[in-house]
Amino acid sequence: MSKEPVVTSDAPEPVVTQGDPVPAPADPIPTPKAPAPDVLRCAYMELVVTDLEVSRNFYVDVLGLVVTEEDENTVYLRSLEEFIHHNLVLRKGDTAAVAAFSYRVRSPEDLDRAVAFYTELGCRVERRSEGFTKGIGDSVRVEDPLGFPYEFFYDVEHVERLAWRYDLYSPGALVRIDHFNQVTPDVPRAVKYMEDLGFRVTEDIQDDEGTTYAAWMRRKPTVHDTAMTGGAGPRMHHVAFATHEKHNIIAICDKLGALRMSDAIERGPGRHGVSNAFYLYLRDPDGHRVEIYTQDYYTGDPDNPRVTWDVHDNQRRDWWGNPVVPSWYTDASLVLDLDGNPQQVHEREEKSEMAVTIGADGFSYTRKGDDEKGFKLGNTL
Amino acid sequence: MSKEPVVTSDAPEPVVTQGDPVPAPADPIPTPKAPAPDVLRCAYMELVVTDLEVSRNFYVDVLGLVVTEEDENTVYLRSLEEFIHHNLVLRKGDTAAVAAFSYRVRSPEDLDRAVAFYTELGCRVERRSEGFTKGIGDSVRVEDPLGFPYEFFYDVEHVERLAWRYDLYSPGALVRIDHFNQVTPDVPRAVKYMEDLGFRVTEDIQDDEGTTYAAWMRRKPTVHDTAMTGGAGPRMHHVAFATHEKHNIIAICDKLGALRMSDAIERGPGRHGVSNAFYLYLRDPDGHRVEIYTQDYYTGDPDNPRVTWDVHDNQRRDWWGNPVVPSWYTDASLVLDLDGNPQQVHEREEKSEMAVTIGADGFSYTRKGDDEKGFKLGNTL
Amino acid sequence: MSKEPVVTSDAPEPVVTQGDPVPAPADPIPTPKAPAPDVLRCAYMELVVTDLEVSRNFYVDVLGLVVTEEDENTVYLRSLEEFIHHNLVLRKGDTAAVAAFSYRVRSPEDLDRAVAFYTELGCRVERRSEGFTKGIGDSVRVEDPLGFPYEFFYDVEHVERLAWRYDLYSPGALVRIDHFNQVTPDVPRAVKYMEDLGFRVTEDIQDDEGTTYAAWMRRKPTVHDTAMTGGAGPRMHHVAFATHEKHNIIAICDKLGALRMSDAIERGPGRHGVSNAFYLYLRDPDGHRVEIYTQDYYTGDPDNPRVTWDVHDNQRRDWWGNPVVPSWYTDASLVLDLDGNPQQVHEREEKSEMAVTIGADGFSYTRKGDDEKGFKLGNTL
Amino acid sequence: MSKEPVVTSDAPEPVVTQGDPVPAPADPIPTPKAPAPDVLRCAYMELVVTDLEVSRNFYVDVLGLVVTEEDENTVYLRSLEEFIHHNLVLRKGDTAAVAAFSYRVRSPEDLDRAVAFYTELGCRVERRSEGFTKGIGDSVRVEDPLGFPYEFFYDVEHVERLAWRYDLYSPGALVRIDHFNQVTPDVPRAVKYMEDLGFRVTEDIQDDEGTTYAAWMRRKPTVHDTAMTGGAGPRMHHVAFATHEKHNIIAICDKLGALRMSDAIERGPGRHGVSNAFYLYLRDPDGHRVEIYTQDYYTGDPDNPRVTWDVHDNQRRDWWGNPVVPSWYTDASLVLDLDGNPQQVHEREEKSEMAVTIGADGFSYTRKGDDEKGFKLGNTL
Repeated sequence: MSKEPVVTSDAPEPVVTQGDPVPAPADPIPTPKAPAPDVLRCAYMELVVTDLEVSRNFYVDVLGLVVTEEDENTVYLRSLEEFIHHNLVLRKGDTAAVAAFSYRVRSPEDLDRAVAFYTELGCRVERRSEGFTKGIGDSVRVEDPLGFPYEFFYDVEHVERLAWRYDLYSPGALVRIDHFNQVTPDVPRAVKYMEDLGFRVTEDIQDDEGTTYAAWMRRKPTVHDTAMTGGAGPRMHHVAFATHEKHNIIAICDKLGALRMSDAIERGPGRHGVSNAFYLYLRDPDGHRVEIYTQDYYTGDPDNPRVTWDVHDNQRRDWWGNPVVPSWYTDASLVLDLDGNPQQVHEREEKSEMAVTIGADGFSYTRKGDDEKGFKLGNTL
Repeated sequence: MSKEPVVTSDAPEPVVTQGDPVPAPADPIPTPKAPAPDVLRCAYMELVVTDLEVSRNFYVDVLGLVVTEEDENTVYLRSLEEFIHHNLVLRKGDTAAVAAFSYRVRSPEDLDRAVAFYTELGCRVERRSEGFTKGIGDSVRVEDPLGFPYEFFYDVEHVERLAWRYDLYSPGALVRIDHFNQVTPDVPRAVKYMEDLGFRVTEDIQDDEGTTYAAWMRRKPTVHDTAMTGGAGPRMHHVAFATHEKHNIIAICDKLGALRMSDAIERGPGRHGVSNAFYLYLRDPDGHRVEIYTQDYYTGDPDNPRVTWDVHDNQRRDWWGNPVVPSWYTDASLVLDLDGNPQQVHEREEKSEMAVTIGADGFSYTRKGDDEKGFKLGNTL
Repeated sequence: MSKEPVVTSDAPEPVVTQGDPVPAPADPIPTPKAPAPDVLRCAYMELVVTDLEVSRNFYVDVLGLVVTEEDENTVYLRSLEEFIHHNLVLRKGDTAAVAAFSYRVRSPEDLDRAVAFYTELGCRVERRSEGFTKGIGDSVRVEDPLGFPYEFFYDVEHVERLAWRYDLYSPGALVRIDHFNQVTPDVPRAVKYMEDLGFRVTEDIQDDEGTTYAAWMRRKPTVHDTAMTGGAGPRMHHVAFATHEKHNIIAICDKLGALRMSDAIERGPGRHGVSNAFYLYLRDPDGHRVEIYTQDYYTGDPDNPRVTWDVHDNQRRDWWGNPVVPSWYTDASLVLDLDGNPQQVHEREEKSEMAVTIGADGFSYTRKGDDEKGFKLGNTL
Repeated sequence: MSKEPVVTSDAPEPVVTQGDPVPAPADPIPTPKAPAPDVLRCAYMELVVTDLEVSRNFYVDVLGLVVTEEDENTVYLRSLEEFIHHNLVLRKGDTAAVAAFSYRVRSPEDLDRAVAFYTELGCRVERRSEGFTKGIGDSVRVEDPLGFPYEFFYDVEHVERLAWRYDLYSPGALVRIDHFNQVTPDVPRAVKYMEDLGFRVTEDIQDDEGTTYAAWMRRKPTVHDTAMTGGAGPRMHHVAFATHEKHNIIAICDKLGALRMSDAIERGPGRHGVSNAFYLYLRDPDGHRVEIYTQDYYTGDPDNPRVTWDVHDNQRRDWWGNPVVPSWYTDASLVLDLDGNPQQVHEREEKSEMAVTIGADGFSYTRKGDDEKGFKLGNTL
């Protein structure tokens, strides 16, 4: 991994560097000849939850997402600045899992492109003109080459954009769905497929020996619409919602404390190295991970500089060097196939980020080559 | 103007409404057959300033923009999250004016498209492979059909993205160029031309009698890359930079107070109705207007709901109903032709927003049909 | 007025200065021989409102004060960090007015001192062992020498301090009562009497000719528990509640906009010169003025430097030089005598701050001796 | 420990409770007959640092404290809202330690009282009319009954209060010294002595078996001027500076990351249970611990409700349940006697908070009696 300094400082070494691109995969998914659908953005996630009332309480009463519509088995939720029907669907089921990662495309014709693209890839493809969820029309769902249930749609019911409804804002108001994060064993393989789908890498984590641990990929001009995190997969690592400011995220933590639900806070709040965003990770009542996120940067130019982080840099995942809790590396949600059965999980064969960075055998640094002071919790694991 | 409520409240009337589109212009600029260049975003403004040292002090020492490069006659400035050479050029000259509104395009080939597009429109077009400013290569400048000096470029020198360099942040850190705002006599005419150039209207101000007072238009998925404000033109109303949070904007005001430069604050800080952003308007030493801006919303979907504001709604320009200072309506900067001479200014023939809303003959409301309490300053003008 | 710079800047003149003390009054109220009661802090205001339901909506549903107790005619409200029964009493009545400015004293014995102190001053004094309002025991009310209904109490019912109840916080959460502000014709006379009562001046506004326009006075170590504002009095200028941060105040404005109640915003938000606090002035449904206030400074040392502002300094009332709306100078609430009748209002004989600073005959400056740029609204009045 | 709910919630148990007072010590320090000096507030700490240049860089260039005066061996620093000469003295020496915890008293006469008070206690007392540090006059230093070097002074040089000098503010501006924190083996013994000195307990940590782990004590009406933390002592746990808002604290973390000094962050940022303040703990180049702190609550009433936390409540030290790093419990700075030699450290005989709450034998809860989810780092130690 070469290291071009893209952000330097007065410190002994550059703060942020640009390394080599994510390497080509050993076992690539072939690029279809059919053009990819034109994806606008991540739009919603469909979650299967085991106790709908408890989950509704978490997402509505605690986090303040807005109920667009609901029935006995399903709650359709959106963020305050959204004008499409929903950003999150909670559906009652026996096994907590993810039923769909759903993207909005630019036009109705992009659904035809999605069908052709995934058909050529040999994937199972299902199209429903009436949609798979309320509020959404013609939709395509696929079991993608990595085993994830991906959805594409254009047709959607418009609802009130509540941006100006400050009478409805809570101190921790969630204003936008920001991104997904997926766990998959082979990150270069996933990246190559997603690039074929039109996504671009904005940041990644590598080591000097050619291993890629994670990559962030975008369609809309933020750091990501989804990220590929190396690990046993296919699994869902998290879904992220954005707030306007950092104090909104702190308010969510304060409220969880007041409700004696502080154990829903898994990691953070903190500042990411990757993405430069301020973050918080929560676990919902089924253990699904939700990130609250604010203030990454514009990435919309085609030559937007990619940032590569050294896996041993302990500011990559938390800019303040605060340790990553092991569950954050190990836990993730199952994903479903189009019949609603959990996809089989395959182990990662390459090195694990957790193993190489924390614990007795791990190694990480604040200043390369420098001795650490040693009071960070990560050092005590 | 029909009024579909797009945001309602418990108040007697909807908070935010969607009216008819901006009407077709009486005297339209023909649509070229040549395809428009693919504009990514507003990228930089070139300002002529009469005292370079004084202006440098304002933009660098007071506002904290970063000097990429400078010489005796020119200072090249950028915001903290930018990776291209500059977002603002200060060039010494005898007459304070705007030399260029510059947009970045998606590819080098878009410069050919720009040449063809504007040539077909009968505009004066000048292309320089070495660029018009340092740090930027092949560029096209035109005198556009509205009389504005527009520039298009792709080739640009990459510089350090200082996003992670928090050691360089000031309390009022400017992180991004956000948009331009142009004054032009005939808003529908300007909108139709800009739509031909690929821009889309996100919000506008109209009245019940078919007059359009202003329109906000975007390429990148924010509320605007530029706005068309009705008035004597072509003139430049303002250039806007974004901060991360609202307190950053307040910090700029506090600093101006400490420096006994509070008279540089023309209007605000406040919350816009249009765009829902938090704002502040400053006047630089030559009177060029600079907006500091934060937190509008995502507009990237092709069916993003357009918002229409009633010109008489006194929350349209300031959501808190605080009055707009008359100079904000009347003052604007001259723009230059490609020879560096000021463009002639043409009066607006339609009604003026200032005239219909403030002063003895103006009319505005907080709640339509309701009596006002009357202590707002606007009522005392 | 001598001018010792206490805060300088790189600007041509000191930013903040310390002048001579408030002059001795021409017609002083004699200092009692009896010792003053030991006042801890301003504790609550009793407001008479003409429509209890409408006022309750304003203070509870809009501003988020907490109802401790209520009945058909009265609502007892407190802020989130308060542990005494109330900080505001809304009592239904025919004439909007203030029934009491109430201070908490250090011990039960201080009530005896209050009786002796005001009896010696020849004031009407009434003591009720059962208190004048619910939740409060033994209390002394007086018609003070300036005509204000002052109350002193120690005995009070403790209620839940909701500081940790973040589940109850709104985006604009009011956490503390901060101060009163009273309008009285002769400021030096009022200051001398309040100093006898144990208050100390922290800041004042004077001119070069010996006129004092206002003074801020404290017991608890903030800038004030009450202020004396020159004008026709006795009247109540405002009661102030504190938030934690500036964004909380902005959130209140945003909510008022969403509720189409923006005309309740009279002035601000802004940064005060005096006190250095961030502020907002609202008018309640009866026109009673409420300030929302955050972040003044510690004043508890006996030699805390007093700050004197030049009445012509247009950063004194708003650090950003934004104009003061005339109603803010002219409007204030009536105060009641102990029988519940409005006190007669006496005109101020000295110069008026409004007259000397705004409008055709007024004069104010940003930099002394410097020409103004002239686009501030205040210049257009 | 009885438990009166003082703050309840909808959760299964009260959020915050009031227990029995801190128990009487087994081996009390006698109460002097001489009256205690009237302490106003904690005023400054004198720190011995081993590399003055490196420490100056930390406190001035990184944290932004203001240099009032400096010479070859000493740097005198203050916060932005301070008007006395300094809040922190860095003095060059061979052994990193604390030379003085210094309090300001109400009057010059309080120095006589301090001498009498500590003389009666049998302490070593030294008075210097010229002061022990620059900028401060007549001062009394003592080796107090707990072994700490306490100082009392009234006479002090006034300097510019920089509150209005926003041109000098950094994003993480420190505006006030807030409190000290001392480590001492026997907390009830320390509390009793400090109560004799006029301090009052605002919050404490106890268990059901009568052990007191820590107590917070105040003179000025905040949660504390100093705290007594159970452990091997006398040692200095930390000195705390206040910011205005939470984002200021986050800015300090971000800057430390940019400077590749993130290992100076020991714990946080987070929300305290005790004090309800937002916090961050840093370690200076000598390992001295500095807290950055904002937004506790008013405690100035004599009947201010004391809050007692159960030592096993894992929201007591961090309201979000985030784990306390072991070094925070174990590390502290030596303190010096009046000859400049380190005081001998005595072990705590009672139970250790760290031992009873974290690690294999520790026990803590989010909801009493409830099973934990188990992904918090504290559980993995």
